[in-house]
Amino acid sequence: VQNRTISDLGERALIDRITARLAMPSWVVVGPGDDAAVMETERGTLQVLTTDAQVEGVHFDHRFVPPDAIGHRALAVNLSDLAAMGATPRAALLSLVLPDALDVAVFDGMLDGLVTLAAKHGVSVVGGNISRSPGPLVVDVTAIGSVRPRRVLRRAGARPGDGVYVTGTVGDALVGLRSLQARCGAGLNDPSGAAQPSDGLRVAPSEEFVPHGSEQRYLYPQPRVRMGMLLGRNRAATACMDLSDGLADAVRQVAAASHVGIAIDADALPIADEVRRWHREQNADPTAMALHGGDDYELLFTARPSQSGRLRNVKTHGGSAAITKIGEVTRDRRLIVRTPAGDAPLPEGFEHFR
Amino acid sequence: VQNRTISDLGERALIDRITARLAMPSWVVVGPGDDAAVMETERGTLQVLTTDAQVEGVHFDHRFVPPDAIGHRALAVNLSDLAAMGATPRAALLSLVLPDALDVAVFDGMLDGLVTLAAKHGVSVVGGNISRSPGPLVVDVTAIGSVRPRRVLRRAGARPGDGVYVTGTVGDALVGLRSLQARCGAGLNDPSGAAQPSDGLRVAPSEEFVPHGSEQRYLYPQPRVRMGMLLGRNRAATACMDLSDGLADAVRQVAAASHVGIAIDADALPIADEVRRWHREQNADPTAMALHGGDDYELLFTARPSQSGRLRNVKTHGGSAAITKIGEVTRDRRLIVRTPAGDAPLPEGFEHFR
Repeated sequence: VQNRTISDLGERALIDRITARLAMPSWVVVGPGDDAAVMETERGTLQVLTTDAQVEGVHFDHRFVPPDAIGHRALAVNLSDLAAMGATPRAALLSLVLPDALDVAVFDGMLDGLVTLAAKHGVSVVGGNISRSPGPLVVDVTAIGSVRPRRVLRRAGARPGDGVYVTGTVGDALVGLRSLQARCGAGLNDPSGAAQPSDGLRVAPSEEFVPHGSEQRYLYPQPRVRMGMLLGRNRAATACMDLSDGLADAVRQVAAASHVGIAIDADALPIADEVRRWHREQNADPTAMALHGGDDYELLFTARPSQSGRLRNVKTHGGSAAITKIGEVTRDRRLIVRTPAGDAPLPEGFEHFR
Repeated sequence: VQNRTISDLGERALIDRITARLAMPSWVVVGPGDDAAVMETERGTLQVLTTDAQVEGVHFDHRFVPPDAIGHRALAVNLSDLAAMGATPRAALLSLVLPDALDVAVFDGMLDGLVTLAAKHGVSVVGGNISRSPGPLVVDVTAIGSVRPRRVLRRAGARPGDGVYVTGTVGDALVGLRSLQARCGAGLNDPSGAAQPSDGLRVAPSEEFVPHGSEQRYLYPQPRVRMGMLLGRNRAATACMDLSDGLADAVRQVAAASHVGIAIDADALPIADEVRRWHREQNADPTAMALHGGDDYELLFTARPSQSGRLRNVKTHGGSAAITKIGEVTRDRRLIVRTPAGDAPLPEGFEHFR
């Protein structure tokens, strides 16, 4: 039996499949099905807007990323951006660029992952667009949130003497990705340059494939929505950013935006035992890998020591994720990692297109 | 001399190239360079949101669409959606999915076309994202506008007895596209199915190539921003939609959303002389082609005869584009085209993925 592809269905049927999954709250004045969506804003709030795309062969590979993880990640990376601003997520727009040969089951699975995460965080998918793709599948999401003035978290704002903190654990996603690649014999962002979109477009991985531990963390990152909101509302953070491109990159960006230096304490980094073990088996340094690895979608933030009560408040109500102090903000503009063997310069973060 | 590609520059340099072109008004609290953009909303307004992508090989072809037209169209199609809602455009987010081999001159040209149109309509590009593409160039834009409650234009709202109107002329873009294809020996949306991204990625077309008339209309559609705003503010329209997928499609959509029928008067369609001539030379019926052709980005709207004063007001202040009555809304749910030879059923509109 040949699988059904989306070109068998047509654009309108695909849109109907999406809208059938959506419920509109009362503040959505016009939902999907018109030229644009119309929504009320909460009085006294600012609007927070971000957009990020997941591209087949660059950000995911059908060979080891199941359809629902594609949809989950496409929304998660955007919710993580909103969290980093201290915003409450409210709505999302979904722009899909779809190959004709895309399996309907992949389309449905992708939608399922996205809608499930949206529901978890009270996000309404208010509109979107479907285009054909002569190449890879692209899932582009715009997320809209709200935040009160003076509760906005920015990359700028860290001051000398502030503590540097991170939520959850770092470096999991990199190990999860490598582990999935090893098990599935597939590569993303091949050093040869041109990432290859998978030929497959099939439902993958197979049903027997059960991702575990760090693999789950890579496939289904949990954006720190509640933590970000609480950091903003409690005015507990002086600066904040998410770890989309890795810890080293985030440290560098916050320091640059705030015109300060940052010293990271290597021994303080919250690295999961599984992750440490994995790197040691590969003869790699867990600290260096945790600094370098991206896709963790934890929050890096800075906080004033004199306002530890505010931070305690966030820890009490912020959910299960740990908050770990990993360093401090310095007046001199250097970026260093303190290790038992002495100080080392912060490694370069990951930069796209290089 | 080998042309520079964007992979020679790196992601950060590309972002700097974009932000250098942007000016932020005071209502943008956080612009590009943080995890998300933050903006104030106008008190008492609703937010209007839309997203639409331009995909190489599907919506444009480097062989006959110059880089600045790619950027122009990517924003124009979204501003047209806002206009159709009666909204005032305010901001845009830009999500770029870029092949490594993209020429820097194409990138700059694309940006130039987009920024120029944004400036013309007072739209601030407040944020965005750059991803790598293993396939086609994708320019995905989210546009944000504002509108007062009870000034929102929707597809629903047309009532029996209302007149049906269209702005400007219809069918230009289809002729422009065909003319460009004929002159450049290139095809888009080839009937063979898979649209081919151009191998080129070069600056095209060559400098000697000067698009004219309908070609200009295809390459640089002018969204009816002012007209849409005025139709909303004057409460002159009972329903409204833009002609992105052609006149027949818009008639069908407005009728379906409003639970009415629509009768179009074939002889009333505003078709440019050049366009009529072109079709006659091809032995095609200008009316049928004008109903079918997409990409015009004019507005279709309905208005009550008893409120002709409101419409006159819009005509007076709406700029140079004509407003032409092309038919009327009927109680019976039929969709027909009235011709001197008798009534005919409205032809099917263009549907993607079929």
